[in-house]
Amino acid sequence: MHVDAISNVTEARAEDLVNKTVLVIDVLRATSNIVTGLVNGCCGIIPVETIEQANEVWQSGDLLAGERNCTLIAGFDLSNSPFEYMSPMIQGKRIIMTTTNGTRALQKSQMADTIIACSLINAQACAKAAAKLNQDIILLCSGTNERFCLEDGLCAGLVIEELIKCCDTPPSINDLGMLLRACFAQQKDHITDALKECSTGKRLCSLGFWEDIQFCAQMNLYTLVPALQQGILVPLTVR
Amino acid sequence: MHVDAISNVTEARAEDLVNKTVLVIDVLRATSNIVTGLVNGCCGIIPVETIEQANEVWQSGDLLAGERNCTLIAGFDLSNSPFEYMSPMIQGKRIIMTTTNGTRALQKSQMADTIIACSLINAQACAKAAAKLNQDIILLCSGTNERFCLEDGLCAGLVIEELIKCCDTPPSINDLGMLLRACFAQQKDHITDALKECSTGKRLCSLGFWEDIQFCAQMNLYTLVPALQQGILVPLTVR
Repeated sequence: MHVDAISNVTEARAEDLVNKTVLVIDVLRATSNIVTGLVNGCCGIIPVETIEQANEVWQSGDLLAGERNCTLIAGFDLSNSPFEYMSPMIQGKRIIMTTTNGTRALQKSQMADTIIACSLINAQACAKAAAKLNQDIILLCSGTNERFCLEDGLCAGLVIEELIKCCDTPPSINDLGMLLRACFAQQKDHITDALKECSTGKRLCSLGFWEDIQFCAQMNLYTLVPALQQGILVPLTVR
Repeated sequence: MHVDAISNVTEARAEDLVNKTVLVIDVLRATSNIVTGLVNGCCGIIPVETIEQANEVWQSGDLLAGERNCTLIAGFDLSNSPFEYMSPMIQGKRIIMTTTNGTRALQKSQMADTIIACSLINAQACAKAAAKLNQDIILLCSGTNERFCLEDGLCAGLVIEELIKCCDTPPSINDLGMLLRACFAQQKDHITDALKECSTGKRLCSLGFWEDIQFCAQMNLYTLVPALQQGILVPLTVR
């Protein structure tokens, strides 16, 4: 098994994803919210790229969710804070979600065999599920504005640690993956501080979202693995 | 002062380089060879992208140097091993050089104010020179085949360490730069092993170039800083 870490959405080439398991990572905050929403009883999340697409897909009873530049979109029901995805209002509802980077990465992964939404809060479960699927793995860090983001890289490093633990034969890993694993090993005892100091974290802190960072920094909090099936993210069931 | 690390040549956008000091990094082996050649008395190195351009630029007395897929180009005088750049035959000669990634990164940096060839062997000197120039800095990791390479990343991490030491006010650093700094801090006591285990290193070892890796892994061996001036790399003199 081979593991390729990719530093941002722009670097992902569709043809490289064929026959692979892709773990899309957007720790602050899209994939953390997707996991949290499914854990808290929403029945599925549809990722779309644009606000227009969100409105097109919407059907009566659905919730519209997302952000542009960290803030709520006018007319939308949910913004991009994980605490909103714990609300009783999401129970049994479909959520149509558009964010700046994470949902774009999910959309771009269409050529993959299996597409999983991964974050620090469900990293171990994602690693175990990906190992069972027994295909080469892409760790797609969503990044911000076509650049690498530390929080996604640390999550990829954690996934690699967990993959090595649960694979009988150690996977081969590309250079970026080796780097991220080493960096995670160095920072794992102060992940919250690392998330606070990275560029997205600084921006979120300045906007008052400090508690979101604390929540998203919790490693392996949930065992739910969201997978994209016919365009909708639902809990994965691995045979 | 702001420091941006960029993971590979493809990610560099020409417009982002304007008014910047760019440190082009290709540890294995283009920028290591450039430094070694200038230290050992060649009078200048002209980086070109293609074999055709190398032949066009060539004038009587010049040496042709370069590689494709780690091996000598037919009809060329020098390959891509640093020990060749210590030979008495290079004394007083111009070298026309084309390599797979490093010379491409130098060519792509044309919009920058100052373009420096940086490697582990001259990293401290490059950091000091860049700090004196007092402009924002781009650490352009050349990478391989449009992907990040660990050896270039570790060198960028060392440069950041050295920049922090020699700047009165600590520079701001992008997320990739913070990651590379942390990774360098973790691996600095076994850089040679890290270079041996990364993808380029493995390939070079399999081709018998183990001593090249050992040479290129020596940190801060030289104080010479090559800068690209009117298309030719010569020792930089900072006011």
